[in-house]
Amino acid sequence: MTGIAFAKGHGTENDFVVLPDPDGTLDLTAARVAALCDRRRGLGADGVLRVIRWAALKDGDDSTDFPAEPGVEWFMDYRNADGSAAEMCGNGVRVYAHWLDRAGWLPDGETLRLGTRAGVREVWFTGDEVSVDMGPARVGPASTARVGTRTFTGTAVDVGNPHLACVGDVELDALDLAVEPDHDRALFPHGVNVEFVTPVHDGRVAMRVHERGVGETRSCGTGTVAAVVAALRAAGRATGEVEVRTPGGRLRVTVTDETTVLHGPAVLVASGELDSTWWDGIRTTP
Amino acid sequence: MTGIAFAKGHGTENDFVVLPDPDGTLDLTAARVAALCDRRRGLGADGVLRVIRWAALKDGDDSTDFPAEPGVEWFMDYRNADGSAAEMCGNGVRVYAHWLDRAGWLPDGETLRLGTRAGVREVWFTGDEVSVDMGPARVGPASTARVGTRTFTGTAVDVGNPHLACVGDVELDALDLAVEPDHDRALFPHGVNVEFVTPVHDGRVAMRVHERGVGETRSCGTGTVAAVVAALRAAGRATGEVEVRTPGGRLRVTVTDETTVLHGPAVLVASGELDSTWWDGIRTTP
Repeated sequence: MTGIAFAKGHGTENDFVVLPDPDGTLDLTAARVAALCDRRRGLGADGVLRVIRWAALKDGDDSTDFPAEPGVEWFMDYRNADGSAAEMCGNGVRVYAHWLDRAGWLPDGETLRLGTRAGVREVWFTGDEVSVDMGPARVGPASTARVGTRTFTGTAVDVGNPHLACVGDVELDALDLAVEPDHDRALFPHGVNVEFVTPVHDGRVAMRVHERGVGETRSCGTGTVAAVVAALRAAGRATGEVEVRTPGGRLRVTVTDETTVLHGPAVLVASGELDSTWWDGIRTTP
Repeated sequence: MTGIAFAKGHGTENDFVVLPDPDGTLDLTAARVAALCDRRRGLGADGVLRVIRWAALKDGDDSTDFPAEPGVEWFMDYRNADGSAAEMCGNGVRVYAHWLDRAGWLPDGETLRLGTRAGVREVWFTGDEVSVDMGPARVGPASTARVGTRTFTGTAVDVGNPHLACVGDVELDALDLAVEPDHDRALFPHGVNVEFVTPVHDGRVAMRVHERGVGETRSCGTGTVAAVVAALRAAGRATGEVEVRTPGGRLRVTVTDETTVLHGPAVLVASGELDSTWWDGIRTTP
C-alpha cells in the first residue's frame, strides 16, 4: 500500500487527521476532508490539520488572505469535518506542534511560531504539556442560547473564532447537545461555538461544548479559553488561571491583561499512509 | 514513530482495525481493543480483526475451543468494539481476506479457507467483489423485538451468531435504533443481533441492523444473510438470490439448499503503525 502520509491524534479527545504536506502538493478538496473525517468510510476525526509551509499556500489555499510572515515557517491549514476552513483550534495547535516535534520538523528555538488563519501563534513545550498563546480574547455583548425549552445567558467571546460562553449552575450531564443550540443569528452571522460552563470553584470549572459545523465535541481549545474568560468575569475577575474539565480531559487556561494561554496534552495514536486507490476514488464518490 | 502495524478498512461501512499478528505475539487485551475502537481517543471502528495463524492461537486465545485444522493457515480473531470476542462477521471476513490479498499473504489456490470461531469459511474473489461461504443458516422459532412502543415479529436465524430478522412493510428511516431493541432473553441468552427488513421486491430488500455489544451499524454481514433467509421465507421461498440495501452500501446473498454466500465490496482506507507510547499506555488507562 503506497499513498498519502497521515497521522491520527487527539488533544483531550478532540481528534484530528494530520496530513503532512510541506510543499502544498496535496489536492485536498472538501470532499476528501469530509471522507477522511467520516468515522465509518474514512479514518474519522473532528477535523483535518494540513501541515504546510506558509510560503507554499496557493491561491485557492488563502494565500491572498494570509501572506507569509518572515520567520514563520509552518501554517496550520485546519479544516472542519464538513470540509470548511476554520480559523483556529487550540487542541489542534497542540496536536500539530506535537506532530512537528515527533517528525523532527520543529524549527530551532524554544518557541514555535505557527501561522494560522487567526494570525501567528506561539507554542512551547513543558514536559508532556503543550502550551499555546491564543492571543487576547475579545469580550462582546451578552446573548442567549436555547437548548430545548431552556434559555441560557452567555457572553460573546472572540478567540480568533466566535464563541458564546454560558456560565451558570447547570447540570452539564443533563444537557441534550445533539442539536445545535439556538442562538442570535444577527450577532453571529457565521455561526457560533456554544459553551456551557460551571462557575469557578477551587480554581476549576467544568464545560461542554457544541462546535459549529461539527456538533458536540469532547473538547474545544478556543472554547476552553472562552469558557475561562467568561467564568472569570462571572467571578468579578479579568485575569487568572483556571483548570477546565471537559468530557475529553483536563486543560488549563491562563488569562493575563495581554493574552490568553491554553495548556494541555497532545496524543499521537497512529501514523501511516492513506490507500491511494481510496484517496483517488473520493472525487467520484457522491 | 515505531509501533504495532495496523490497517483500517470497511465493508459497506462496517469498519474494522486490522492487526497483523501472524505469530500471536500481540498482547491484545480487551482494554486495548476498546481503546482502538474508541472513535475519539483511538482509531475508531466497529471491531478489530486480528490476522493470526491458526497454529499460533494460545490458551487465552481460544486454542482449546478452536484446535487448528490441517490446511487452514489463517484464523480471524474478531473482537467487538467493547473488547468481547465474536464468532463471525461477514463484512469482517471480506476486509480480512482483502487485506491478506493486498499484503501478499494469501495462500495458493483459488479459494481461501479461513478459520473463524464459527468454523472454517471459504472465500473467493471476483473482480472487486469478495464472496464468502457463510455456511447454512439455521432457522429457529418466531419471536418479537420491541422498539419504543412498537412490536415487530421476526424469525430467529443462526448464521454462526444469533439473529432476529423482522420482515415487514416498515418505514426503516423512521426507526429509532439508538437503544437496543427489547427481545426474548430466554430465547437469546447471549444477546441477539436484530434486523429490520423490507419484503423482497424485484429481487431486492432494504435493511437496518442493531448489533449486540456495538449498537446500530451501517451494515452487518451475518445480519444481511439472516435478513435474506427470513425475507425469502416470508415470500414462500427457501432458496434464491437477493440484493440487500444497507445504510452503508449494497450486498448480495445467495441461499441454496446447502449453504449461504455473501457477496460484496471490501475497502482499505489506510495502513501504518500504532504509536508505541499510546499502545503501552492503555494498560493503565481507566
